[in-house]
Amino acid sequence: MGVREQLDIWLDNRWVTNLVIAVIIFNAILLGMETSPEIMSVAGDLIIMLDKACLTFFVVEIFLKLVARGRRFFKSGWNIFDVLIVGAALVPGSQTMSVLRALRILRVLRVISVAPSLRRVVEGFVTALPGMGSVFVLMAIIFYIGSVISTKLFAASFPQWFGSLPQSGYTLFQIMTLESWSMGIVRPVMEVYPYAWMFFIPFIMMTTFAVVNLLVGLIVNSMQDAHQQEAGEQTDAYRDEVLSRLVAIEKKLNDKPPS
Amino acid sequence: MGVREQLDIWLDNRWVTNLVIAVIIFNAILLGMETSPEIMSVAGDLIIMLDKACLTFFVVEIFLKLVARGRRFFKSGWNIFDVLIVGAALVPGSQTMSVLRALRILRVLRVISVAPSLRRVVEGFVTALPGMGSVFVLMAIIFYIGSVISTKLFAASFPQWFGSLPQSGYTLFQIMTLESWSMGIVRPVMEVYPYAWMFFIPFIMMTTFAVVNLLVGLIVNSMQDAHQQEAGEQTDAYRDEVLSRLVAIEKKLNDKPPS
Amino acid sequence: MGVREQLDIWLDNRWVTNLVIAVIIFNAILLGMETSPEIMSVAGDLIIMLDKACLTFFVVEIFLKLVARGRRFFKSGWNIFDVLIVGAALVPGSQTMSVLRALRILRVLRVISVAPSLRRVVEGFVTALPGMGSVFVLMAIIFYIGSVISTKLFAASFPQWFGSLPQSGYTLFQIMTLESWSMGIVRPVMEVYPYAWMFFIPFIMMTTFAVVNLLVGLIVNSMQDAHQQEAGEQTDAYRDEVLSRLVAIEKKLNDKPPS
Amino acid sequence: MGVREQLDIWLDNRWVTNLVIAVIIFNAILLGMETSPEIMSVAGDLIIMLDKACLTFFVVEIFLKLVARGRRFFKSGWNIFDVLIVGAALVPGSQTMSVLRALRILRVLRVISVAPSLRRVVEGFVTALPGMGSVFVLMAIIFYIGSVISTKLFAASFPQWFGSLPQSGYTLFQIMTLESWSMGIVRPVMEVYPYAWMFFIPFIMMTTFAVVNLLVGLIVNSMQDAHQQEAGEQTDAYRDEVLSRLVAIEKKLNDKPPS
Repeated sequence: MGVREQLDIWLDNRWVTNLVIAVIIFNAILLGMETSPEIMSVAGDLIIMLDKACLTFFVVEIFLKLVARGRRFFKSGWNIFDVLIVGAALVPGSQTMSVLRALRILRVLRVISVAPSLRRVVEGFVTALPGMGSVFVLMAIIFYIGSVISTKLFAASFPQWFGSLPQSGYTLFQIMTLESWSMGIVRPVMEVYPYAWMFFIPFIMMTTFAVVNLLVGLIVNSMQDAHQQEAGEQTDAYRDEVLSRLVAIEKKLNDKPPS
Repeated sequence: MGVREQLDIWLDNRWVTNLVIAVIIFNAILLGMETSPEIMSVAGDLIIMLDKACLTFFVVEIFLKLVARGRRFFKSGWNIFDVLIVGAALVPGSQTMSVLRALRILRVLRVISVAPSLRRVVEGFVTALPGMGSVFVLMAIIFYIGSVISTKLFAASFPQWFGSLPQSGYTLFQIMTLESWSMGIVRPVMEVYPYAWMFFIPFIMMTTFAVVNLLVGLIVNSMQDAHQQEAGEQTDAYRDEVLSRLVAIEKKLNDKPPS
Repeated sequence: MGVREQLDIWLDNRWVTNLVIAVIIFNAILLGMETSPEIMSVAGDLIIMLDKACLTFFVVEIFLKLVARGRRFFKSGWNIFDVLIVGAALVPGSQTMSVLRALRILRVLRVISVAPSLRRVVEGFVTALPGMGSVFVLMAIIFYIGSVISTKLFAASFPQWFGSLPQSGYTLFQIMTLESWSMGIVRPVMEVYPYAWMFFIPFIMMTTFAVVNLLVGLIVNSMQDAHQQEAGEQTDAYRDEVLSRLVAIEKKLNDKPPS
Repeated sequence: MGVREQLDIWLDNRWVTNLVIAVIIFNAILLGMETSPEIMSVAGDLIIMLDKACLTFFVVEIFLKLVARGRRFFKSGWNIFDVLIVGAALVPGSQTMSVLRALRILRVLRVISVAPSLRRVVEGFVTALPGMGSVFVLMAIIFYIGSVISTKLFAASFPQWFGSLPQSGYTLFQIMTLESWSMGIVRPVMEVYPYAWMFFIPFIMMTTFAVVNLLVGLIVNSMQDAHQQEAGEQTDAYRDEVLSRLVAIEKKLNDKPPS
């Protein structure tokens, strides 16, 4: 067995995985402490140093995985996910631009790629998405149409809400979540355009209905998966037995020599 | 094969369908650009010209379909939908009235009639509606009763919310969506009528319960459809086999000459 | 056949039912028109007269039903419902007190007792309630405990929201619906009691979870009903056939004389 | 039969249980009356005395159970729950600190441990939790990441909402419930950081999606439980009969002497 195979097996060790999870959690706590000016004024240098140590650990871990698995490494979406998240911290400027510094906490997401139970939940989410593709496209069409209509009609009087397509899109998203849709947006709009409700109420109904359909689709899907898995196995075994017994009986009847 | 049959087949070509979708999306982008005063001041004439070209394309496409299919054309609800949406743009005045101009973006909805996967989603929505008819009638009754009661009781003190039946209906719709129902509407009303909660809280409970019933109905319906489709086929095949084998065994037993 | 039997059959006539529905809808429109001061100033006397005519019609209808059915009349909950709704209008003072006058519109609910499809929906609602009884009791306990705690802790500083048990109960209902719970109530409370979130966030989670459980219970119930009804009949027929064929085969094998 | 066995049986008497429930409800009413300054000024001493009597009753009841059941007493989580709730009132200071006094109403929760139907609902809640563990961990990760990012980015300009990790966590919880998320929080933030929506809208979508997944998981779980229970028994009996009949037929065919 070559060094690479041994390394591969060693990386899949339970305690290696647990060590990686521990370092991720330790790093998460460090990055949480960085948000506190009091802690940073006391132990800022130590925290930044430890954060760099964690980053080094991740780089080494991914490098070892890359060595051990070669091309296979890139076949798993989770590995690419790890590379992107850790790699982002190595991009020049990422230590100075505040937004990129804030995004370092996304490294905590690595826990998902390491812990199998979380991985399964996320994979469940992701596999549910394609089945909902058509409904998403439909919602995008509804939002685009709604944005164009509301920008055209209300941009002049309410530029802060409907001034441009993206602003209208944001406002319509807010209306879809039903947040302050009436007291905050539609009642003021209706004072200028009394018939504005003829646009907004159908919009609310359609988007709510589409969201409900997404939900229903999700429920029906997971239901079927669960149903087939559990009931299926038991039923299949029973059916196989019934059919094999029936075949045996028929065969026996055929085989009997005419008496 | 006549010219009309050939035209019919040609219109169902994959690349013709894709061309129509492309023109619809291009038209959607044009109408989106029209909302931006900056773009319009630079390229307004070009955009309006291209929009007219798209409209011409749609008119020609629908005309060709009409020629190819004759009477059959009107049998599909989607074709009538296309005629109405495109036809609206040809009505005199539609290029000058701002509301009608804004509604031109509804043309994007044609994507739904052209793309089969979107069509199926919308047809799923539409077929789910009749089963929910009774609940809708019930909600309409609840809203009408609620509007009459709230107008009679609160119109004098709160004309901006409950001044007339339509205003009360709108306010009750807002309350049903739970938007600012308490801080915005019911608490101010209770300062004048301390027992107003005896009307509003049952109203919220009843409408929420009715909405939940709609949701439950939808879920149960799609569930049954999905269940019957998938499990059904497999089960039916199995049942047919069991029964035919049983019949064969019985027949064999009957056919045997008394030994 | 006696007069009462003939009357009973006549009252169940399709056109009698339709007439009753028509009068209910006509009465609903009249009561809707009463909310408009403009219409009342023009045709007020006519509307009040027609309303009285409708009421007379209902009284006569119920009286005829009572004569035709005798004791059986009171066995149906819907009949008692009709008597109460129509009877309320005959109570002295009901024409002068504004609240009771407003409640006359509840007469429209009679449509539900007359139209079978609406009746079925409401009966579906009502039959679903007992199964959810335990969850309702639990929610009542949570609300009572929440009201006592919040009144004790916050009454002194926020008498407008938590001044007494009923006021706290109302405020907690608002918080359960998530309406302005944070910006409107909890953030102001937290300025005085910084740990108030330790009460409110668990309260929101518990009530939301209880509501979700109600929803889940409803879905599972309707699902089972639907499942048993549809799949059941088909499956039962199949099972009966398989068993009867198996029994026949066994019998045939037994009957055969030892060869 | 020893005294302890007799005591154990006596404690499980229906009227003993009902008495305990009655005392709990009576105590709940007393604690509710304590919230009213008017009632307390008139009958305060009596109420406090009766409350102490109820507490004594509970202590005696639990003591008797402890005597009757010995070690078995601590095997039931509900008994430990009772001890904690009643014991809290005996801790020194619990009669003087206002928060601990307010928590006495938690004693009402004992109704749940006494009434079997409520107990079953709560046990249903609790048994559903482990299956949702992974989704909860995932939501905790999303909240932690969201809190760190929002504190880092927005603490400087909006210390009242995002000043520290706990404050950001609270604000993000509010945003997850969709309460005033846009008009109250995100629009003001966007005036300073125009791209803030790139953080908040994905956050809303992810948390909503996770909540929906919790809901779907709950529905599918209860569905399967219900399905297996009901349909299972019937189907199992049928399957057993079919198989035993098939085995009997085969045996008969084998047993027949070659004719």
